[in-house]
Amino acid sequence: MSCRLPPALNSLPRAAARAANHKSSKVSAGLSLSRWIPSRHYAAVVPPVTQDKSGSKGPTAMVFLNMGGPSTTGEVGDFLSRLFADGDLIPLGRLQGYLGPLISRRRTPKIKKQYADIGGGSPIRKWSEYQAAEMCKLLDRMSPETAPHKPYVAFRYADPLTEDMYAKLLADGFGNGKGGRAVAFTQYPQYSCSTTGSSLNELWKWRHRLEGKKSDDMSPGGGSITWSAIDRWPVHPGLVEAFAQNIEATLRTYPEDRRDKAVLVFSAHSLPMSVVNRGDTYPAEVGATVYAVMQRLGFKNPYRLAWQSQVGPSAWLGPQTSMTVSEYVKKGQTDLVLIPIAFTSDHIETLFELDKEVIAEAEHEGAKGVKRVESLNGSPVFIRALAEIALDHLKSGLSCSPQMLLRCPACTSERCLEQKRFFQAQQQQLTAPA
Amino acid sequence: MSCRLPPALNSLPRAAARAANHKSSKVSAGLSLSRWIPSRHYAAVVPPVTQDKSGSKGPTAMVFLNMGGPSTTGEVGDFLSRLFADGDLIPLGRLQGYLGPLISRRRTPKIKKQYADIGGGSPIRKWSEYQAAEMCKLLDRMSPETAPHKPYVAFRYADPLTEDMYAKLLADGFGNGKGGRAVAFTQYPQYSCSTTGSSLNELWKWRHRLEGKKSDDMSPGGGSITWSAIDRWPVHPGLVEAFAQNIEATLRTYPEDRRDKAVLVFSAHSLPMSVVNRGDTYPAEVGATVYAVMQRLGFKNPYRLAWQSQVGPSAWLGPQTSMTVSEYVKKGQTDLVLIPIAFTSDHIETLFELDKEVIAEAEHEGAKGVKRVESLNGSPVFIRALAEIALDHLKSGLSCSPQMLLRCPACTSERCLEQKRFFQAQQQQLTAPA
Repeated sequence: MSCRLPPALNSLPRAAARAANHKSSKVSAGLSLSRWIPSRHYAAVVPPVTQDKSGSKGPTAMVFLNMGGPSTTGEVGDFLSRLFADGDLIPLGRLQGYLGPLISRRRTPKIKKQYADIGGGSPIRKWSEYQAAEMCKLLDRMSPETAPHKPYVAFRYADPLTEDMYAKLLADGFGNGKGGRAVAFTQYPQYSCSTTGSSLNELWKWRHRLEGKKSDDMSPGGGSITWSAIDRWPVHPGLVEAFAQNIEATLRTYPEDRRDKAVLVFSAHSLPMSVVNRGDTYPAEVGATVYAVMQRLGFKNPYRLAWQSQVGPSAWLGPQTSMTVSEYVKKGQTDLVLIPIAFTSDHIETLFELDKEVIAEAEHEGAKGVKRVESLNGSPVFIRALAEIALDHLKSGLSCSPQMLLRCPACTSERCLEQKRFFQAQQQQLTAPA
Repeated sequence: MSCRLPPALNSLPRAAARAANHKSSKVSAGLSLSRWIPSRHYAAVVPPVTQDKSGSKGPTAMVFLNMGGPSTTGEVGDFLSRLFADGDLIPLGRLQGYLGPLISRRRTPKIKKQYADIGGGSPIRKWSEYQAAEMCKLLDRMSPETAPHKPYVAFRYADPLTEDMYAKLLADGFGNGKGGRAVAFTQYPQYSCSTTGSSLNELWKWRHRLEGKKSDDMSPGGGSITWSAIDRWPVHPGLVEAFAQNIEATLRTYPEDRRDKAVLVFSAHSLPMSVVNRGDTYPAEVGATVYAVMQRLGFKNPYRLAWQSQVGPSAWLGPQTSMTVSEYVKKGQTDLVLIPIAFTSDHIETLFELDKEVIAEAEHEGAKGVKRVESLNGSPVFIRALAEIALDHLKSGLSCSPQMLLRCPACTSERCLEQKRFFQAQQQQLTAPA
């Protein structure tokens, strides 16, 4: 028997491998992978409203995954302790259990003050719940056969946590012997093991804890929730359009004779070089987003991609956003447009780090032309893009992208391996006759 | 007077600044920057043959820039000594003059042996001369008004060197009081200060040495050659199509049931982290190329971007290609397709490093399915893409992309600054009435 499995699954037991093979041939025979190619043009095709309140495949739970943030300063301590406990995000090795709590306790007062400075908490829950709800309304019209689409949010480090979302799903009638369909929709446009990977690992963990043995029963009708994942969408034309429109809005605030000379500084959260060198796909996908946005903007302005929010003494991917801004200011370039490119809602890294540190510092140095582009937040263009991405995914019949099933070359995480096995196995339930 | 100059030029003397301002307003008024956006679809539009042997704007010198390689093993010593003397490529700081010759002398015997192993020399001169000549034939038909297009090659470290190319240009009737038009066409699809930047710096140096004071005379009809640069083309649809076709050809050599499971390992030359952290644009542009190629391929296969050819003890961008291949082989993934993605012709890094080191090592470990995709070399799809890129450039009337005029945030190179000033000033000659 020739091996038809991706590398992550080559050590599956023989029976499971046979099942996966069987599934795999079904997939290649019956499903088109071309749905994974974002359409070239951004055209929102909304069919006439013919919503069937009980679509033949509905209801569908649409679960937005993100890191989250404390909604009040009182939640900062718990938020940080979860964050520094996550080896997928901050790899501290065997010292994670000791160093994590130490670092989070030490940082809590400072970070509390930062959240107080931006109004007492992160707006990310508000935006996530709004985006998910609005997207579901659009989806109900665009895909009546999978309606109703029910919005959920699962944060990695703040309420609502993954386990709370999962408990709500079960309480709402999904799973528990009744089956049902859920889509894990990462809200990070570019995939990193530190972000989307960590959220999917957490989802896999709670699936096993809360659906117990049922989750191992892959036979159709086993009664557990059928999951699929939208794992990346870095150059979706609607995303690109939403970024471009916000950038153009900021550019219009400069006098016309300075407009084309302003430097666009795209800023993404950095990664430790240990993660980059392990083979994480995030830096290249951020590069793809930036190039796509610049294409849409006609390459009129000069630009750079920079990386922010480095912490600790280890090596991180650069150039750093703060250095980039201060060096350009020193060179006399004081019209700089900062564009958060890897996160779609406002959070501490935009509202505090960019607005109250980087821009304030530049202003202190005399540069008055440094501005930040608004985050996508409630952008209708963005929310329509989310609906189109979800629609493409639902039509594809795929449990995730082929790319997601491939581990990083230097990955040693067993949890990552198990999570990928789980999503690959979900393909079987997806392709089984209803 | 408000400042209309990009940061690199803010310290220009007042008169030059006024001239640049004047030019700048002309540019924004009369020229469309949208020519810099690659057309979305790869369609070769070749007008009927109406070649005017003396096109109204011709002749045009088309100068292919690349690093080059020794055509015989006897040239290896000179090649390496030039390479290690180049601070743009290998930044050794104040010790460059001492360490460069030391390292190159020490490495010469080993590298000589590598060139002997691939047939006695690099084929890059053969391919570059072929590509340039074939492209010029196409261009003569596609752009009769700028014909005849005359092919030249300028290598950074091997014959024909930049100074030899420049001397040939002058001997052929360009410059020397007679004016004339030349295009510096980088053969690196993605821009790095280490590669394209170094070649352009060298071109600027020899322009000054060989055209003397004339090169400072920016008035129309001053008699020196008018230069423009095609500085990057990472996602041109023709380039993407050429890569995709070669990848598909390699995938067809696998049995059908293994084809979609093969992992595509894109491999680009790495950069020292000091260059990445300075703000070099290359990593993000390579990421854009990879994503564009995967879009064209329909994301059917899992893939990774890896980086090769690291030397010395300092930190370089990873993951390393050799590590990526050996780790996947260890994980049981033995069908791997290596794709050189940042160089268009064969060279020591493909013919020796990938073929005789990485693949041979994998085969030694028992992996028989590791293959390399053919380099673009003589691909007619690729050569047509070059012609389309050149045509777009000639029609744009731009001396270079706005992006090229922006220095890296942490750049301290005076040569870089002067080179950018030079290309910006060329805009004046380009837009002057003939």
